[in-house]
Amino acid sequence: MTYKEKVLDFYKNSEIVFSQAELDKIEYADFGLGRPEIEGLNLIVYVNNERYCAKEMVLVPNQTCPEHRHPRRGNKGEIEGKMETFRVRKGKVYLYVEGLETPNIRAKIPADSAEFYTVLHEIVLEAGEQYTILPNTKHWFQAADEGAIVSEFSSPSDDATDIFTDPNIKR
Amino acid sequence: MTYKEKVLDFYKNSEIVFSQAELDKIEYADFGLGRPEIEGLNLIVYVNNERYCAKEMVLVPNQTCPEHRHPRRGNKGEIEGKMETFRVRKGKVYLYVEGLETPNIRAKIPADSAEFYTVLHEIVLEAGEQYTILPNTKHWFQAADEGAIVSEFSSPSDDATDIFTDPNIKR
Repeated sequence: MTYKEKVLDFYKNSEIVFSQAELDKIEYADFGLGRPEIEGLNLIVYVNNERYCAKEMVLVPNQTCPEHRHPRRGNKGEIEGKMETFRVRKGKVYLYVEGLETPNIRAKIPADSAEFYTVLHEIVLEAGEQYTILPNTKHWFQAADEGAIVSEFSSPSDDATDIFTDPNIKR
Repeated sequence: MTYKEKVLDFYKNSEIVFSQAELDKIEYADFGLGRPEIEGLNLIVYVNNERYCAKEMVLVPNQTCPEHRHPRRGNKGEIEGKMETFRVRKGKVYLYVEGLETPNIRAKIPADSAEFYTVLHEIVLEAGEQYTILPNTKHWFQAADEGAIVSEFSSPSDDATDIFTDPNIKR
């Protein structure tokens, strides 16, 4: 099975009803790194308007969304950075945010870009659990061995302004 | 089975994972009318902060959320009214908004308060379909015969400022 077929299978086996149009326009983000099964994220955006945003994300087993933050934006920084709530629907997610470093974290940091994973305060999210990330807070997350489906509820999404720790990343 | 047991069953059979704490604090809204199986709504609020809100709503068969709108708020009306997206997860919903009246609507208007249902532009939402309601637009909705589970993604929720068409309603 190709990577994209695997992702599609996750969405189709999620118990969530999607339209064919939504499945046809899944965003397979590889962050310009060319190794999506290691560092990547797959998204169906339900709605993203000037008030709020909601998405359904798929992570294949052990897939990592690289470390980034959502800074203030607008010409004069007048718009607060994105705030977001992750709610795990299926599988398990290891989430890392700024704060006291957790000894012996459970995620496996991607070897090719280990230096760009700098925040190590661990939050483990099982299905039915959620966590809210404050604006401009560095974070990254990785699915456990079975992969994961994660809902994101947030303020409006503007991926272009995300700041990734890895300078090689192009979103 | 009591009404509350029916609602709890809907949540438990939804294929969505909830924590026991969430199931323990379901909001059973009857809008002060005392006939929740006819006019009522049941909610689990995932998150409601100053930026966005997300909820999972249950409607038992033919249950109706009465007509209302979300006006501007704040001391000087400086906050735009709530904007919300309904996405049906299971079952079918008949949604009515301002606009051209649909002849022979599919919902059954609650007999005891028929005069307070004034907008009749019909949108039928099956599982996997969604609709965004603009601020300050009158709307009401009813589940079809099998009931429904509906996700709501929105700007912040402040139920106290909702304006219902029925003056007997206390939210």
